[in-house]
Amino acid sequence: MLGVLQVERTSYRRCALTLKDIAERARRDATVPVAERDVERALSALLSSEDIWRVIDLSGVPVMALVRVLSALREAGFLDWDGGRLVLTPEGREFAGSLGIGPKLELKCPHCGGRGTTLGPVGKIADKFKEIARDRPEAIQDYDQGYVTEETTLYRVAFMWSRGDLFGKELIVLGDDDLVSIAAGLTGAPKRIVVLEIDQRLVDFIRDVADKEKLPIEVKQHDLREPLPPDIKGKFDAFFCDPTESLRGFKVFAERGIAALKGPGSAGYLGLTHCEASYGKWREIQRFFLDAGAVIAELRDAFHDYVNWPYIDHMRSWPHLPVHRIPGRDEIWYRSALIRIELVEGPHIQERRYEGDIFSDDEAATT
Amino acid sequence: MLGVLQVERTSYRRCALTLKDIAERARRDATVPVAERDVERALSALLSSEDIWRVIDLSGVPVMALVRVLSALREAGFLDWDGGRLVLTPEGREFAGSLGIGPKLELKCPHCGGRGTTLGPVGKIADKFKEIARDRPEAIQDYDQGYVTEETTLYRVAFMWSRGDLFGKELIVLGDDDLVSIAAGLTGAPKRIVVLEIDQRLVDFIRDVADKEKLPIEVKQHDLREPLPPDIKGKFDAFFCDPTESLRGFKVFAERGIAALKGPGSAGYLGLTHCEASYGKWREIQRFFLDAGAVIAELRDAFHDYVNWPYIDHMRSWPHLPVHRIPGRDEIWYRSALIRIELVEGPHIQERRYEGDIFSDDEAATT
Repeated sequence: MLGVLQVERTSYRRCALTLKDIAERARRDATVPVAERDVERALSALLSSEDIWRVIDLSGVPVMALVRVLSALREAGFLDWDGGRLVLTPEGREFAGSLGIGPKLELKCPHCGGRGTTLGPVGKIADKFKEIARDRPEAIQDYDQGYVTEETTLYRVAFMWSRGDLFGKELIVLGDDDLVSIAAGLTGAPKRIVVLEIDQRLVDFIRDVADKEKLPIEVKQHDLREPLPPDIKGKFDAFFCDPTESLRGFKVFAERGIAALKGPGSAGYLGLTHCEASYGKWREIQRFFLDAGAVIAELRDAFHDYVNWPYIDHMRSWPHLPVHRIPGRDEIWYRSALIRIELVEGPHIQERRYEGDIFSDDEAATT
Repeated sequence: MLGVLQVERTSYRRCALTLKDIAERARRDATVPVAERDVERALSALLSSEDIWRVIDLSGVPVMALVRVLSALREAGFLDWDGGRLVLTPEGREFAGSLGIGPKLELKCPHCGGRGTTLGPVGKIADKFKEIARDRPEAIQDYDQGYVTEETTLYRVAFMWSRGDLFGKELIVLGDDDLVSIAAGLTGAPKRIVVLEIDQRLVDFIRDVADKEKLPIEVKQHDLREPLPPDIKGKFDAFFCDPTESLRGFKVFAERGIAALKGPGSAGYLGLTHCEASYGKWREIQRFFLDAGAVIAELRDAFHDYVNWPYIDHMRSWPHLPVHRIPGRDEIWYRSALIRIELVEGPHIQERRYEGDIFSDDEAATT
C-alpha cells in the first residue's frame, strides 16, 4: 500500500514546458520578482478555486507577481478566464499534475478564526500512526533524544502539507525520533522520503515499518557531524529536523538540512525551544538563516509538545531545580516552536566536518 | 469606567527592589544570560501556577536561567518552595503587583491542540467593541488605509495579552484604523495607551470614544515621516503598527515603533502580507529587525483578515487583474501575518526624517 490515503496520483506525461519557463515568461517586462515557486503556488491555488480573490488569497503570491504568472499561464494555453472564472485547461491540469502539484489545502481551525491548524486528511492516518508508534524505541540521552507526542507529529505533517511542502515533494528528515517520515509516508502524499539517522535502533525500526507498510522511505545511518553524502546534497524540496539546541549543534543540523535543499523555493522546518535557548540565541540562529539565503516564513511558538523522556532525573538542569518531582509521561512542559524557512537565494552554506560534542552549551538543560 | 473587564488592579506600594535588582542577583555566577524580562515572565508564570513544570512551561524562560531567577526571588523573600510547591510570598505578590505584572494567560485554542489562539477575557468586550466600531470612519486611499475585521482586532489584543504585552503595560499604536487602542482600552488591562495617527477623522473618533468610555488613551496627530516627539521616544513596553508595505514605508513605521520602546524585553507587533511583499522583501525586513536589536519571537501567517475597502476598483493592481469582480465587503482575500518582535539589545535605530511618498514600490498592489 502506498499510504492509506486515497491521494490522486494519475500518471501524467511530462510536459515540454517547466515551471522555470513559465516564471521566465512571467518575468518579461515585470518590475517585481517572480519565483518558480510563485508559479507552483499559483497552480496549487488554481486547482482549489476558480475565483480571483480566493486564488489571490490561497496562492500567497504578491498580487503584482501573480497577475504576471496568470498571464503567462494563459499564454501557454494552461488557463482561461473568458467566463469570469479562472479555469485551468486540460493542458494546465496535465502540466500541474506532471509536476506533482496538488490542490492547496488550507487546514484552518474553524474554532479560532482560522488561526490554528487542523489535521485535515492527515487525521485519517492518525490511528494507524499511533498503533505503529506504540512499538517505537524509547528516547535515550546519548543523542539528546526526546520525541514529540504522536498528535504533534501529525499536526506537523498536516502543517507541511498546507504549506505545499509535502504533496508530490522530495522530503528529507535529519534525525527522526519523532517518526515524521512514517507519518508523512502513511499519507501517501510525498514523492520520496529520505531519513538520515544516527541511532541504529531507529534506523531498523523505520526501515521495518517502511518495508511492512510499503512506504517510499529510504533510511540511511549517518552522523550529521559529517557532511552530507553527495547523492543527498541539493536533492530535496523540504527538510525537517528537530535540532539539539546548543548553538553549534543547532547550526550543524540546520546546515545539513539547508545543504540538502534544491534551491530557491525549497523549505526547511525546525524546532526551537525556550527551555534551552534564550532570545539572544534565537536571534543568532535567525541571522544564520538569513545569511544562508532563507527567509523565516512562519514561526509558531509552542507548536510541538514533547513526551517526557525516561532520563529526566539525569538531565543537566535536574540538580538545579528547586523541586524534584518527576512529571508524568504526558504532563507536557517541554515544548518547541515550529519554524518554517524558505530559500530566497542560495543556499549559501559552507559544509564543514564537526568533531566532538555538539550537544552542550551553557543554556543546555536536558542533555 | 476603566474598561469593562474586572481586572484586578489593587494599588501596591512600590517595593524597594526592582526587576533589575533581581536579574542582577540571578546573574551572579551564572553562565547564561538572564534578562529583566525573564524575571517578569517568571513572576507572571508563578502567579498562574505553583507547579515547577507548569512554571517552566508558562514562563518561556530558558531552564538554566529560570532556576537562577527562582533562587534570586527566594533570596529576596519573594518565593518559597519548602512544601514542594512554588509559592509566592505575600511580599512576592506585592512585588509583582507593584510592577503591574499579572498572571500568565495561555489562551490556547482547545480544538486544534492549542496551536491557535482563543479570545479568553477579551471575548467579554467583543460586543461593546463591535458596537463602537459600527461608527468608525471608512478606509480611504490617501493613507493606504484598509482595516482588519473587528474579530481580528480582538484576537490581536488577546494574543498581545497572552504574550505579556498588554496587562500593566504602556502601549503605543502607530496608525490606528484598526482601532486597536479602543479594544485594548476596553479590556482595562494596559496602564497607558498612546495613539499616533495622521488622519484627523480617526484622531477625533478615537478621542471621542476614549472620552465617552473613560479609556486611558491619548491620541496625538502625527505624520510618521517625522521623528517621534521627544516625550514618546523610549517610553513604551510595546508597540503595534500595520505598516504600509513598500520597503521604505514599512521601515518608517517599524523604525518609529522600535524607537518608542524602552529597551530589551520590550516588544513590537507588525502586520505583513504576501499580497504586497515577496519573500525577498520579507527577508530584508527581517534583517532590519535583527540589526535593530530585535529577535523575531512569533510569525503567524494569515492571522489578520481585512474588510474590503471601498476603493478596491481604484487600487494599483485592479487594471492588471484578469477578472474584474468587486468582492463582497466580508469576502476576505487580503490577509497579513502577525509578527511579534522583542528587543534583545538596543534599540539600534537611526531616527531620520522622510519626505515624499512612502506608500509605493513595485510590489505595491492596493495603493
